[in-house]
Amino acid sequence: MENIATKVKITKASSSKLSSVDFSNLTFGKVFTDHMMVCDYKDGSWQTPEIVPYGPLQMYPSAKVFHYGQAVFEGMKAYKDDEDKVWLFRPEQNFERINKSSKRLAIPEFPKGHFFNGLEELLKLDKEWIQKGFGNSMYLRPFVIATEPGVSASTSSEYKFMILCSPAQSYYSGEVRVKVSEDYSRAADGGVGFAKAAGNYGAQFFPTDIANSEGYQQIIWTDANTHEYLEEAGTMNLFFRIGDKLVTAPISDRILDGVTRKSIIDLAKDANIDVEIRRIKVAELIEAANAGELKEIFGSGTATVVTPILGFGYKGEKYELPKIEDSYAKSFKDQLLKIQYNQAEDKFGWRYEVK
Amino acid sequence: MENIATKVKITKASSSKLSSVDFSNLTFGKVFTDHMMVCDYKDGSWQTPEIVPYGPLQMYPSAKVFHYGQAVFEGMKAYKDDEDKVWLFRPEQNFERINKSSKRLAIPEFPKGHFFNGLEELLKLDKEWIQKGFGNSMYLRPFVIATEPGVSASTSSEYKFMILCSPAQSYYSGEVRVKVSEDYSRAADGGVGFAKAAGNYGAQFFPTDIANSEGYQQIIWTDANTHEYLEEAGTMNLFFRIGDKLVTAPISDRILDGVTRKSIIDLAKDANIDVEIRRIKVAELIEAANAGELKEIFGSGTATVVTPILGFGYKGEKYELPKIEDSYAKSFKDQLLKIQYNQAEDKFGWRYEVK
Ligand SMILES: Cc1ncc(COP(=O)(O)O)c(C=O)c1O
Ligand SMILES: Cc1ncc(COP(=O)(O)O)c(C=O)c1O
Repeated sequence: MENIATKVKITKASSSKLSSVDFSNLTFGKVFTDHMMVCDYKDGSWQTPEIVPYGPLQMYPSAKVFHYGQAVFEGMKAYKDDEDKVWLFRPEQNFERINKSSKRLAIPEFPKGHFFNGLEELLKLDKEWIQKGFGNSMYLRPFVIATEPGVSASTSSEYKFMILCSPAQSYYSGEVRVKVSEDYSRAADGGVGFAKAAGNYGAQFFPTDIANSEGYQQIIWTDANTHEYLEEAGTMNLFFRIGDKLVTAPISDRILDGVTRKSIIDLAKDANIDVEIRRIKVAELIEAANAGELKEIFGSGTATVVTPILGFGYKGEKYELPKIEDSYAKSFKDQLLKIQYNQAEDKFGWRYEVK
Repeated sequence: MENIATKVKITKASSSKLSSVDFSNLTFGKVFTDHMMVCDYKDGSWQTPEIVPYGPLQMYPSAKVFHYGQAVFEGMKAYKDDEDKVWLFRPEQNFERINKSSKRLAIPEFPKGHFFNGLEELLKLDKEWIQKGFGNSMYLRPFVIATEPGVSASTSSEYKFMILCSPAQSYYSGEVRVKVSEDYSRAADGGVGFAKAAGNYGAQFFPTDIANSEGYQQIIWTDANTHEYLEEAGTMNLFFRIGDKLVTAPISDRILDGVTRKSIIDLAKDANIDVEIRRIKVAELIEAANAGELKEIFGSGTATVVTPILGFGYKGEKYELPKIEDSYAKSFKDQLLKIQYNQAEDKFGWRYEVK
């Protein structure tokens, strides 16, 4: 990234919590590093980004975020290579996407210099928290919340942009089976499904809890109009391997434009795999499953990179996928991890060093 | 309401801000009374409700409400009659609805005793803040937010239920014209539109800001699938008077079951007005407007009770409604206000005294 002249005000924590953390036993998103970035929007502009010790906020109970969910977020990761260099993966994609989300939620866009300088200063300060080794990373959570006190249902005039850092192993563990949604929906045409809007996620918890109780770890959302087309999962885009073809739903105003998804599409094309970006019917999936043509389903997302899906349920029927030798999921995951951890050539220019 | 044995712990403010408030010049939702109610959910149950001085909360920036919009709210009002008695309007409806909303957002339901005893103690304490006179009221904002710190996208294990009180004149002022939505949507089938989920509101700000810039105060949402059917406005249900018939859209999983709406339906039936609860097409509205049959449009909601709508826009065309003598909107508003302020017989048993 160009060096953009944004000053970041830094207030260091008086001591570090690092030594108290058991890195071999991390729950995702529960432990935070010593510092966080905060930047306020008021009087019509974003103020100076600050890095301060991680700790609670003081907020009025009338702050708009509590009442109207005017809030967006991002999810990114930092990786450390064997030489202690710190890397990000396509961070400009997350920067652009948070502003796309913000725009839809009527939140003022965040300046690029603030984003990158703030993020990099933060990572330099908390660098010791990033563990080496495949699977270890630092999950980064940029987000923006509406802070103006007042309970009238209208656009806030004040916001807080923040970045939190949380050391992570892999997000999911165990086997993943998914339920194809038959009645609940995630997003409407003309709605906010393409944005990482806070409200999109809370709305999924109840149907997901039901799916969990039925033995599924996640839901595959279908289109709200007909429930005939497969869209995405709660925090992953989806790929279906039918024969040796790879099919994934097109981006729309209901589906998040995932960074991992677009990277996998590039890797697949590069490997001469036949990639079809098109709507895919539940009926086609089931037909392929019954014909023995459905070889793999996998999810793509920052948290787990690639998640193989072992089976799915639909209208009370359960479908199990075959065990497969030459798995696309495994191959894409390996390739992406190697790029992310600076262990392979980066022919697409996706790696970004923090220095 | 039955007297339910819930204890409420009260900590009084050391002084009152009441004398500093200019009641003739209130901005909606900006001024709050001396106290607020707070009740925490942890270890699997709702704790003792507390009334404390109104003031900021301490919350971790990783609290789930900031990231996943797991939050719901209600809107109610308290009214004072000429004898200084304080009244609520159908409060059990709001109690039931917040739990319906909570259920859909995977939030634990709130106990009835906690709700009513907390609310009533709060109103008794801040009774002086309720001004007499038509149009004056105390807006009440019960809400629940997910407070568990942690950025994994899953149901929170900790919550805060709160009630804020804000003295109010009437919510809207000035003339209201609405834009019929042609592309943006508020809610999906199988989604959370029927719930007062925080995220439903933030998602409307951007399209509403656009409508505002075009000279409309609000949007009439249409169904996400076809945009052919009229649904509701941002914070109001809608009624269309065609000839002397009153038409309103049926409640669905996309439309909020408004307390004012159902009260108006009862009043209309009681007055032998022909009420049709059915889907209504934009095309029908325009046909009626062109034929001179569209006599009124009005919104119904707690904030303004009834809002007459003077005109609407659709596909670049603007439609103005005729001035009308025997307005249904005015009649329903008068009847409702008189019931709310204890100035008329309450034949439906809607009034609820706080004592
Ligand atoms: C709804 C949704 N879809 C897909 C993804 C995957 O996107 P990415 O690959 O950019 O992490 C995410 C998570 O980030 C998500 O929240
Ligand atoms: C989306 C929506 N529709 C309708 C209403 C009107 O409902 P009620 O009459 O219960 O206030 C409200 C506001 O309360 C609302 O938020």
